[in-house]
Amino acid sequence: MKEYENLFTEQIHRELKSFTEYRIAYQEIWTLRNVLSVLQWDSEIILPEDGREERGSQIGLLSGLIHSKYAGESFYKLAEKAREENEQKNLPGQAERKIEFERLFQDLDRSRRLPQELVEEFSVTTSKAHSIWAKAKKENRFADFAQILSKIVELSKEQAECYGYQTEAYDALLESYEPGERAKDLDKLFFNLKNSLKPLIAKGKKVANPFLKEIPVFLQNKLGEALPGILGLSSGISRLDASEHPFSTSLGSKDKRITTRYDLKDPLSSIFSILHETGHSLYEVGISEIDGGPSPLHDSVSLGIHESQSRLWENQVGRSKEFWEMYYPIFLDTLNIKESELSFSKLFSYINQSAASLIRVEADQITYNLHIILRFEIERELINGRIQVRELPEVWNSKMKEIFGITVPSDKEGVLQDVHWSGGAFGYFPTYTLGNIYSAQLFQTFSKENSNFQSEIKQRKDFSSLLNWLKRNVHWKGKFYSAKDLIRSATGSDPDSSYLIQYLEKKLIELESTDHG
Amino acid sequence: MKEYENLFTEQIHRELKSFTEYRIAYQEIWTLRNVLSVLQWDSEIILPEDGREERGSQIGLLSGLIHSKYAGESFYKLAEKAREENEQKNLPGQAERKIEFERLFQDLDRSRRLPQELVEEFSVTTSKAHSIWAKAKKENRFADFAQILSKIVELSKEQAECYGYQTEAYDALLESYEPGERAKDLDKLFFNLKNSLKPLIAKGKKVANPFLKEIPVFLQNKLGEALPGILGLSSGISRLDASEHPFSTSLGSKDKRITTRYDLKDPLSSIFSILHETGHSLYEVGISEIDGGPSPLHDSVSLGIHESQSRLWENQVGRSKEFWEMYYPIFLDTLNIKESELSFSKLFSYINQSAASLIRVEADQITYNLHIILRFEIERELINGRIQVRELPEVWNSKMKEIFGITVPSDKEGVLQDVHWSGGAFGYFPTYTLGNIYSAQLFQTFSKENSNFQSEIKQRKDFSSLLNWLKRNVHWKGKFYSAKDLIRSATGSDPDSSYLIQYLEKKLIELESTDHG
Repeated sequence: MKEYENLFTEQIHRELKSFTEYRIAYQEIWTLRNVLSVLQWDSEIILPEDGREERGSQIGLLSGLIHSKYAGESFYKLAEKAREENEQKNLPGQAERKIEFERLFQDLDRSRRLPQELVEEFSVTTSKAHSIWAKAKKENRFADFAQILSKIVELSKEQAECYGYQTEAYDALLESYEPGERAKDLDKLFFNLKNSLKPLIAKGKKVANPFLKEIPVFLQNKLGEALPGILGLSSGISRLDASEHPFSTSLGSKDKRITTRYDLKDPLSSIFSILHETGHSLYEVGISEIDGGPSPLHDSVSLGIHESQSRLWENQVGRSKEFWEMYYPIFLDTLNIKESELSFSKLFSYINQSAASLIRVEADQITYNLHIILRFEIERELINGRIQVRELPEVWNSKMKEIFGITVPSDKEGVLQDVHWSGGAFGYFPTYTLGNIYSAQLFQTFSKENSNFQSEIKQRKDFSSLLNWLKRNVHWKGKFYSAKDLIRSATGSDPDSSYLIQYLEKKLIELESTDHG
Repeated sequence: MKEYENLFTEQIHRELKSFTEYRIAYQEIWTLRNVLSVLQWDSEIILPEDGREERGSQIGLLSGLIHSKYAGESFYKLAEKAREENEQKNLPGQAERKIEFERLFQDLDRSRRLPQELVEEFSVTTSKAHSIWAKAKKENRFADFAQILSKIVELSKEQAECYGYQTEAYDALLESYEPGERAKDLDKLFFNLKNSLKPLIAKGKKVANPFLKEIPVFLQNKLGEALPGILGLSSGISRLDASEHPFSTSLGSKDKRITTRYDLKDPLSSIFSILHETGHSLYEVGISEIDGGPSPLHDSVSLGIHESQSRLWENQVGRSKEFWEMYYPIFLDTLNIKESELSFSKLFSYINQSAASLIRVEADQITYNLHIILRFEIERELINGRIQVRELPEVWNSKMKEIFGITVPSDKEGVLQDVHWSGGAFGYFPTYTLGNIYSAQLFQTFSKENSNFQSEIKQRKDFSSLLNWLKRNVHWKGKFYSAKDLIRSATGSDPDSSYLIQYLEKKLIELESTDHG
């Protein structure tokens, strides 16, 4: 839908008065959301310490203002009028506008199903829960977190009842992150994956950190700052900063910012964060390139699709042999490392190492998905009422044993490790693995059609064929399709985890040959 | 009025319902103004190049929203009701609230006197004028700028008629920057100053740049970053960045940011910008420390008073011998300069050099004020209709000759040098020299009462007696007094330029003794 604008001729604007009016109101809301993103970015990167509390009020006030504009009666009525007008007037682009309104009302109607008191109680409870969780994790005391987590689970179940669902309550929450996705479909997708990945764990290899000395931040930054540009993210519309947790954010159609984190002992940590966040940003840039926006169609499809874009650049591209054949000399040169200190095969094995481990955020490509499936299975049962909060440590630990063969030594390295549940984000975890599944499937389709890509990287640092393919097949589709339909239209098949399995199996074979080579 | 909060007991809030309601609305406006400052700060320091246009829309939208909240009927009526309520109920703090409403309605009523069309025409014209002026300056073609400047002068005169005035139109514009100030009073203040400064020009000395090598930015930054903290601006509520034009801004009561500019060939340039901007920020911090805010009284008095706070730290403190006796070793050490390369007396003479010059922003302490008086005399005549735009170059050049004995070689170094008139900021210039006059008068009063200050600086880098004196006598008064009353209450005398004259005369004597010492 790149040329969505063609549907907005002067004639359309003249004849669809309500549509034009609704779009002006939408643009205002969109602009204020970008202002909110500026405040949030600034809070993470810039804000002097003591300004934090007042910044909270600024963000609160602006969020409230945006909410009242978006979810208020007047915008709803305006949009309804515009929708009716579109139905009545048979003008070019009518079908596309119909989908635009579907997306809009999906979101508006959904948020209107939650009573105000529930929204407020949820917000108060989860904001209290964050520090309780952080303390309980630090002190390794799950019991201290259990009470408020039970409350959050109850409120989440209430939310699910308000939203409504067909099969199971969990689906109603999953919908917030992955519209159209259902737990029973995830089950199918993940079943295969789990069974195929478990035997791969033993084939992976843990590799020791090969860096002989610390690499100062200014050198890592020098290397990292050039990387987004190499992939195709122009410095005229983006910037790189450092933050505790890497993230990417869009502050406008030509203002995309990413962050990374520097580990003095391991410069790859920052490189892979940059690859990941650049992937997210490239998607946002692509969406902004769609004409005729902003609109509810000028948006990402789902968290899973968003994650597919970051994982694709991080893993399929960033852990490939071709990428490192191109990047290895730049890497050594910029960081003042001699080839004799760090051979290619040593570096490449380290980049693709894999081993069973306790902590999700430190996990590798293979085991990461098993960490996710574990969480999905547990949170689904929790929301569907088949397990209780007090049983969580036991359930967690036995699943870790079953999947990884690992005995969890403490809840802080087990059930307490992630922030998500303290924020009531049930349904979020599976989108990480959906991202991995989608990225493998998309990259496989692209590779078939673009057999020169690997040599384009190696010889010319040229990633444009991939970026253009992603723009055409994913980014420029905006929110026109559901995630599943988008994957179908881009790859010709239903979402399928076998692409990811094949990719990981091939990776293990490639590693063996590199080791011996 | 530091303990203004004491006037807001529970009882007051209970009994003054409208007042409480009006204050909640005021706080919302104030918070949104801070959000706007975040957007503006980010535009100057952070924003990727291509994001500029969209940022313009964000700023435009938010400004419009703030304007409609502040200048709209509903806030006005709320404030009127609160004012009446305060008059009717004889409760503690009634007199202070009366002044709060005076300040508020002064501002509200003033802005309501301008018809919307005039506001818009002025805004459109001045925004066009900026690039026309920049081009005309670059190409040294005053004629190209004359037409739009005439338009701006006409619109400014119209504004003055709408605002109303007693003696002359110029006063109505001056009121925007220096409330309560009148041109005829400035005349008296400046008359003395001009006559006393003219003979000092010849006594000043031009000193060549004494730095033998370029000083890299990271070293200058290391030196500069520590400076605000030494003066008393805590790093928990402030930060330092680099920008083309140094500025300071308040983004919240505990979020004050300053910027500087680095000149590789002259590290003093950045140091004096930091001293200046720190002075502005310390004032803003002091205002934020007043209890019971935000309110129309929790604000700076005028641009002149604001400038007095920056000039005091930049000049009275930052160009003093005692400051440099303390700072000289730190300066040399941090910048890797040897004492043999740069003697104290050489540095100190350079810091206090003075000579007739063409350009205001490069002028020294003595001649700066003469540059201002020249502009004040010209713009006053222009607004009062006694000279025409086309006569400006001639008037300018003849005044430069009269005051400095300098022949202006080109309009770009003459009448075209400043941005102010292209923005229609008539009445702004005199506040710079008011700042210098006030700063000398305030510092002189402080010094009489604090004879140990110079040794506290020298021996302990301790500026707290000065900062506390300024807080008590200036910052914590907020906007409770007019500028003149504030100076009277702080110094015991009417604003008087003789303090500044004495200070500059003493400085010349001190320099002579340093030269010979």
